[in-house]
Amino acid sequence: MNVAIEKAKQFGMGMVAVRNSTHYGFAGYYPLMAVRENMIGITGTNARPSIAPTFGVENMLGTNPLTFGMPTDEEFPFLLDCATSITQRGKVELYAREGKELPKGWVIDENGESETDSAEVLKDLISGKAALTPLGGIGEETAGYKGYGYATVVEILSAALQQGAFMKMLLGVKDGKKIPYPIGHFFIVIDISTFTDPADFKKTTGDILRELRVSKKMPGQDRIYTAGEKEHYTWMERKIKGMPFSVELLKEFRGLCNEYGISDFLTHFEE
Amino acid sequence: MNVAIEKAKQFGMGMVAVRNSTHYGFAGYYPLMAVRENMIGITGTNARPSIAPTFGVENMLGTNPLTFGMPTDEEFPFLLDCATSITQRGKVELYAREGKELPKGWVIDENGESETDSAEVLKDLISGKAALTPLGGIGEETAGYKGYGYATVVEILSAALQQGAFMKMLLGVKDGKKIPYPIGHFFIVIDISTFTDPADFKKTTGDILRELRVSKKMPGQDRIYTAGEKEHYTWMERKIKGMPFSVELLKEFRGLCNEYGISDFLTHFEE
Repeated sequence: MNVAIEKAKQFGMGMVAVRNSTHYGFAGYYPLMAVRENMIGITGTNARPSIAPTFGVENMLGTNPLTFGMPTDEEFPFLLDCATSITQRGKVELYAREGKELPKGWVIDENGESETDSAEVLKDLISGKAALTPLGGIGEETAGYKGYGYATVVEILSAALQQGAFMKMLLGVKDGKKIPYPIGHFFIVIDISTFTDPADFKKTTGDILRELRVSKKMPGQDRIYTAGEKEHYTWMERKIKGMPFSVELLKEFRGLCNEYGISDFLTHFEE
Repeated sequence: MNVAIEKAKQFGMGMVAVRNSTHYGFAGYYPLMAVRENMIGITGTNARPSIAPTFGVENMLGTNPLTFGMPTDEEFPFLLDCATSITQRGKVELYAREGKELPKGWVIDENGESETDSAEVLKDLISGKAALTPLGGIGEETAGYKGYGYATVVEILSAALQQGAFMKMLLGVKDGKKIPYPIGHFFIVIDISTFTDPADFKKTTGDILRELRVSKKMPGQDRIYTAGEKEHYTWMERKIKGMPFSVELLKEFRGLCNEYGISDFLTHFEE
């Protein structure tokens, strides 16, 4: 992202494609780097195959986030950081841990039906008997082909520009052995000052977001959020109150610290 | 788009923002211009407000397409040209003409419920009593906030870079009088040869699309399509067989041609 930012400073916009990488962490991190420079940041990455295409049942595309960050005149930027599937494996794990059924449409089984048993889904996602659905859901009725299309856009931009690996090449297994995932990413940066005064851009963007928030709400809802707003409030709260951390997780963590001989590290945590 | 293509030839990529425009027609047209030059084309536009944000019921955002075109080694390119709502007004009109109910989730009424009476919906979309839903649907369960997020991205990129109009400014009405919609667009072009040999890019993109098509299908489905494929087949068919055109529409069209004194034009059409 730093290279893309440097290019944008020089030419108005910049793009970088990365090959043979691995999980790049929180996708939103990179657009935020651009936002700090009064620039627009866009990024995407491919990932282990898990989304089935429309009319398909096989895990083919990664959860392939397509992520945008824009500076605003508010305390926090607009940051849309989301997978092009309805959900991702981590959320299914959370449901399974809580013993909850998944909502309909999140996961498709071999028969093309929605699979909702979260514990079963976790096994079936690994064995390939189930796959995640694209944003828009199963089939064409609620426009699942659009989410499938955006996931494909991210797969192409993450692989074809740098002639890297894609889809089944990212299974992390070769000849029965675990191998690293040779993932690809792309980073695009647009220098706002090439087009207009960044202060004006931020004002217009802020106006759009504020008007959305004050628009008419569904009965029973008292807030409309814009992308990045909830995360900003959580960040503010945790800066003051600290991270929530379950006692059970802390015990497990303590065990691991002792095992790896880094128990000094534990002094940073209180129960 | 031509300016963005020229910039991409010189600098590797180019972007143009347009203000005070009007409906720019078929969004996919512009990425196809880039594709013909072995480039990637991206475009978006804002539009009359019609999508309600997540937890909202008011028409705020346009159907705001986010459109990508990529060259491939096949007879036709990858072309994803779709609104960031589940559906658009034209499709609702089609359902109303055929007297069909809308699928659940396409339209939200004032009470935050799905509205399915297509004739009623057409009236309510105009009066503002109903709004289209973002890709992902109503609420958060099937990730409607993602479609809402992408629609917002397109609204920002279409307005803030050129300090143009957005959302309610695009209602087309001022002081009770009809006025033109001062719509904004953006165009991004990426020159593939800056990154890799375009032939290699096209081969990888083609491989991704072909692997998607041959992946395991839902029972009862014998085809998986990739974006732009169906449109290509329709185009091929119509090149040979001509456009389907209803006799009723032809009568209406004949009336209009006579009214405007261009009845000579009718010799191009046969019943």
